[in-house]
Amino acid sequence: MLGDNIHFLLQPRSIAIVGVSTKPGKIGYLLLENILQGEYPGKVYPIHPSASEILGLKVYPSIHSVPEEIDAALISVPAKMVPQMAEECGKKGVKGLIVITSGFGEVGEHDLENQLMDIAHQYNMRVLGPNVVGILSNGDRLNASFIAPLPLPGKVSMISQSGALLAALNLASHSYRAGFEKLISVGNMADIDFADVIGWLNQDEGTHCIALYAEEIKDGKRFIEAAGKVSKPIIALKAGVSKHGAAAAASHTGSLAGTAKVYSAVFEKAGVIQATGLGNLFNRSLALSLQAPMKGDHLAIVTNGGGVGVLSADAAEHFGVPVQFMPEDLQEELRQFLPPFASTKNPVDLTGMAGPDWYLPSLRKTLSHPWVDGLVVLFTEGAGHDPVEIAKTIRRAVDESGVNNKPVTASFIGGDRSEKAMKWLVEHGIPAYNVPEEAIDALAGLHECAKLKKGMAFSGEIYSNGKTETALAIIQKARSENRTVLSEIEAHQVFASYQLPVAQMNLATSEEDAVKIAREINYPVAMKIVSPDILHKSDAGGVKVNIQDDVGVREAYHSVIENAKAYKPSARIQGVMIQEMAQSGLEIILGSVNDPAFGPAIMFGMGGIFVEVLRDVTFKIAPLTLEQSNQMLDEIRGAALLDGVRGEAPRDRQALAEVLFRYSSLVYDLAEEISESDANPAFVYEEGQGVRIVDARILLNSNK
Amino acid sequence: MLGDNIHFLLQPRSIAIVGVSTKPGKIGYLLLENILQGEYPGKVYPIHPSASEILGLKVYPSIHSVPEEIDAALISVPAKMVPQMAEECGKKGVKGLIVITSGFGEVGEHDLENQLMDIAHQYNMRVLGPNVVGILSNGDRLNASFIAPLPLPGKVSMISQSGALLAALNLASHSYRAGFEKLISVGNMADIDFADVIGWLNQDEGTHCIALYAEEIKDGKRFIEAAGKVSKPIIALKAGVSKHGAAAAASHTGSLAGTAKVYSAVFEKAGVIQATGLGNLFNRSLALSLQAPMKGDHLAIVTNGGGVGVLSADAAEHFGVPVQFMPEDLQEELRQFLPPFASTKNPVDLTGMAGPDWYLPSLRKTLSHPWVDGLVVLFTEGAGHDPVEIAKTIRRAVDESGVNNKPVTASFIGGDRSEKAMKWLVEHGIPAYNVPEEAIDALAGLHECAKLKKGMAFSGEIYSNGKTETALAIIQKARSENRTVLSEIEAHQVFASYQLPVAQMNLATSEEDAVKIAREINYPVAMKIVSPDILHKSDAGGVKVNIQDDVGVREAYHSVIENAKAYKPSARIQGVMIQEMAQSGLEIILGSVNDPAFGPAIMFGMGGIFVEVLRDVTFKIAPLTLEQSNQMLDEIRGAALLDGVRGEAPRDRQALAEVLFRYSSLVYDLAEEISESDANPAFVYEEGQGVRIVDARILLNSNK
Repeated sequence: MLGDNIHFLLQPRSIAIVGVSTKPGKIGYLLLENILQGEYPGKVYPIHPSASEILGLKVYPSIHSVPEEIDAALISVPAKMVPQMAEECGKKGVKGLIVITSGFGEVGEHDLENQLMDIAHQYNMRVLGPNVVGILSNGDRLNASFIAPLPLPGKVSMISQSGALLAALNLASHSYRAGFEKLISVGNMADIDFADVIGWLNQDEGTHCIALYAEEIKDGKRFIEAAGKVSKPIIALKAGVSKHGAAAAASHTGSLAGTAKVYSAVFEKAGVIQATGLGNLFNRSLALSLQAPMKGDHLAIVTNGGGVGVLSADAAEHFGVPVQFMPEDLQEELRQFLPPFASTKNPVDLTGMAGPDWYLPSLRKTLSHPWVDGLVVLFTEGAGHDPVEIAKTIRRAVDESGVNNKPVTASFIGGDRSEKAMKWLVEHGIPAYNVPEEAIDALAGLHECAKLKKGMAFSGEIYSNGKTETALAIIQKARSENRTVLSEIEAHQVFASYQLPVAQMNLATSEEDAVKIAREINYPVAMKIVSPDILHKSDAGGVKVNIQDDVGVREAYHSVIENAKAYKPSARIQGVMIQEMAQSGLEIILGSVNDPAFGPAIMFGMGGIFVEVLRDVTFKIAPLTLEQSNQMLDEIRGAALLDGVRGEAPRDRQALAEVLFRYSSLVYDLAEEISESDANPAFVYEEGQGVRIVDARILLNSNK
Repeated sequence: MLGDNIHFLLQPRSIAIVGVSTKPGKIGYLLLENILQGEYPGKVYPIHPSASEILGLKVYPSIHSVPEEIDAALISVPAKMVPQMAEECGKKGVKGLIVITSGFGEVGEHDLENQLMDIAHQYNMRVLGPNVVGILSNGDRLNASFIAPLPLPGKVSMISQSGALLAALNLASHSYRAGFEKLISVGNMADIDFADVIGWLNQDEGTHCIALYAEEIKDGKRFIEAAGKVSKPIIALKAGVSKHGAAAAASHTGSLAGTAKVYSAVFEKAGVIQATGLGNLFNRSLALSLQAPMKGDHLAIVTNGGGVGVLSADAAEHFGVPVQFMPEDLQEELRQFLPPFASTKNPVDLTGMAGPDWYLPSLRKTLSHPWVDGLVVLFTEGAGHDPVEIAKTIRRAVDESGVNNKPVTASFIGGDRSEKAMKWLVEHGIPAYNVPEEAIDALAGLHECAKLKKGMAFSGEIYSNGKTETALAIIQKARSENRTVLSEIEAHQVFASYQLPVAQMNLATSEEDAVKIAREINYPVAMKIVSPDILHKSDAGGVKVNIQDDVGVREAYHSVIENAKAYKPSARIQGVMIQEMAQSGLEIILGSVNDPAFGPAIMFGMGGIFVEVLRDVTFKIAPLTLEQSNQMLDEIRGAALLDGVRGEAPRDRQALAEVLFRYSSLVYDLAEEISESDANPAFVYEEGQGVRIVDARILLNSNK
């Protein structure tokens, strides 16, 4: 990218507005009006060829007539004039451009966009956009956009690829209880993209959580790297994760969205929480901006309504943080001041009579207990206690407990008083939701956040014993023969260069050769005709399996060659492949796809009907640490098969994890070369017996 | 139940308040105050031993001093006095009691509750409660409860087992956009339960949708029958569907909640839509009360924001109504007035410039097109068009289209103006939601509603060729021997009495017998020792399989008996079972559990690791029609296995559906006798080759 100085663009000390308008309601007018209404403390220079004053501000006829330095220029002139204006900004020494104007790449005008970027590059200017709404920042009192007013203040900063959505969310921030510190529209991302803004927001004091609305992530590797370095929680809503959604997105943005599974793997790798919808993005980002991640699995629920407690326990299981009964000592503590008809199990049901005097000690003691990792407080409004009093009690209990590293969320069900109570809570740092399942989901988001951070903190050690040069030599040979599909034996050799346990094989070109190879491999063996002209080897009678001895090898050698010749007299025959007969075991499948944006992703699943019928597979972005390789084994629905079912012995998980570890390193190191690969089938044997890859397949990148 | 006259209790022409209080704020005072504030048009008789007037109303010293007829009595006296008051009401001829008072079955006071019910029974009075909040009805201007005010008016009537939740939802109806026609608290359901109220609400004009909050459904069969007869949509939120939630519910209500899968099967059988949470109950019931069910699968989305359109397509797939591209003729119609940069595919993206003039014809033409079954309209608020104008345009487009049998929902994202627009829409019959995924989910609810109704409309024809008497005779024999576990051969005979394809077997008590039976069955056969004293037959050397001929049978006959004797010399030996060796096929498992509330439920799943590792099974409540049996085959994740995978031929679906059909009839007809049963394993063969049940097992009810 064009250097990394985006700071003065995103937090300018002075702004020029190129294309300011004298007509109220026009975008060029709104830009100036909004900056002034936002009470921006920096300097503002409206640029207009003829006007002398707009909205009480002195107007300059051109950018170079401005006497002082300009950090950022907001550009809102017709698309065709943008490059010229950019050039003038460049000459003036402007540090960054915020190009509001649309009509560039998003409508196919790629040349115009490239022209703009060439100029920016020439003058070392960073560009936000084109095709953006602008930047809105509560912390800087800066509304450099054509939408108003500034959002409800909050601790979430949102980066959006859709300007329309950003504008609507800005308005919605006031009606919902979810505020924003900054709203940043990234539009076409011709220069500044998610990775840049995420990285910059990491140092922004007012931002406690970064929320993304993404239709496409172009430079995936940079995204993963940038997000991985950020200490603040990041949550992303990716549009186009469904089959038809991806198709609709393609027609909307003109770009093909990656597959949902690859995106999920990317977000995991980057430590980014994935939102399931717009409401979920709102709910979870609020919690992520106000509360600490939930570091363990023990969720406590305190409620004044039994039914709502049960619903919350249901929701907790649904959202992946299932409730357990609380330890006896905590229950005993609670029993000391709660009436006998209250339940101390979890959910703690204080019953309908509970007021601040029961809530206060219950919450304080629950939160303080070392077993508890996170707390959801529920209140069902009735005729009795004032919800606002309960809200204040929650805040007080948290403060008195002195605990600030465990998350707390709340839900009040009721009328206006409950609304008021929840507003008070949010303003005092505790996320509160209209329905209990949203309070639970918010906590599940904080739980996921901690889990992802833990994953990020893995050693990061990658398998390093692969013989890359050996693999490259094999690949180069194929390339020299204009092939992008490696032969079976080549693929096996590439796999073997990373110490992957491929079934042994070798090409025999004579009967004696065949016997020699078979003896080396050990009996039994399989034999297959090798000919570039015979695709369906079985149909040609070119395959013999389970050959037990030298005599069998000699017989088979002649019969497969004769069969092949009879099948296709013109076929060029290169020899006969002698292959180890791998003993059958638990069938698995490994694979890799080289995503244009994110690089190689690794797939793992159970083989056979599991992959064919149930699509029971999981993806991760390469390379994997050994910990991640181990994690991957538990991510499929059929994971229990590895532990042994129906009386079978447990499988060699350790060896399998090691295989994934090595395989991920192979496809990562050779990302420039390998476009797709798989190991299908492979067999996992009993503990200590390892893994055997029966068939390996490698396709090369064809655009090299 | 005590006769079915609940009409005068739920819609009384006159009410007495037994236990009215003179003290403001007391429940007995609130009851009267709320009735008066609600402007109830019927007659009200406060009963108090000493007061002469409360809130301007004449007070009567006792129920029998009231000069006129009383339809319903609200009872709010201490629990111990309730039976006496009920007696007085009975003598007066009161038709129904609404027992507000708590302290009965819910705290273990079952005797007191029984005493109350005995009196009610004696005087032929119906009882709502005890332990209820009361009844709130906008249509009758009746607030016979201690909570106020009446809910925001709407077309949903809610029945709740939790009074606290009902009270909170009443308050929440005003802050949300979701009103209620009636709120009915059913408390302990000592008499009137869900089934009664559902049945009654079916004739209530103001009720367009019935919503339930249920912790336990006691008389499940009556519930299924009552709900099945109702023509209005019913939606239920069942608390305790998670493992821990069920445990929490048990500690909350003292009753064991049924398993989640059985409840889902029950709701399906009853045609009841299941809500996933409180928010979902609100959202879906609003749509169900305002819009027609969605009869086909074709969902159309019209939006002014591409990104929001993509998010909606994602949500549509997630909620089970995946979007497809619209037919070319409809797209062509739309293109005639839409600009070229708009997308007509689906989502129809009118782009950010769209105002009423583009929305109106787009919506009208989309809704009118025969391909379209349901419509979601999205609007992203920006600086331009007024959301309220768009709202009015939606209503106008629907009206002008003349279409009233296809559902429409909407979502506006934005600020106060969008809020106002959505309020207007709801008031004008179109459900509107803050986020697009909720509008999609609401439509998915309407889709499910139509699907359930379709399922209900199945022929209803049940398998009727089962020989119940034959089965009963076998069961009676076991009972006469004090057994509740049928022997293998008995279980096979019971299955066979319903023409189920069990593997043949017969008991041999001599070598000659064994040979004769084996010849009848056809070779190969398996042989097993039969002894009540030997549980682990294989360990005892008591099993021989794959016996090919008479000689083998003779040898095996002696060897299993000798082995058994050697293994346990004291064992009583009844003979040797000769069994058909069923050819292996696609392994499945069938089962039945007899739920105390709902009667027998049928389970179907793929056998082996599918059931053991993936728990890939589905349940339905018996009996099944042949259509339902067929449906069941597609409900498991591994359904594609029946179509043949990995080159295997398709399986005999028809025979399998027939097996489920017969099996469901068997366990239904014998529900009094059979507590559990299974067929595990059973094999499904290629088309035309049928099904074979290898092992059948039947447990009898022990409490008979």
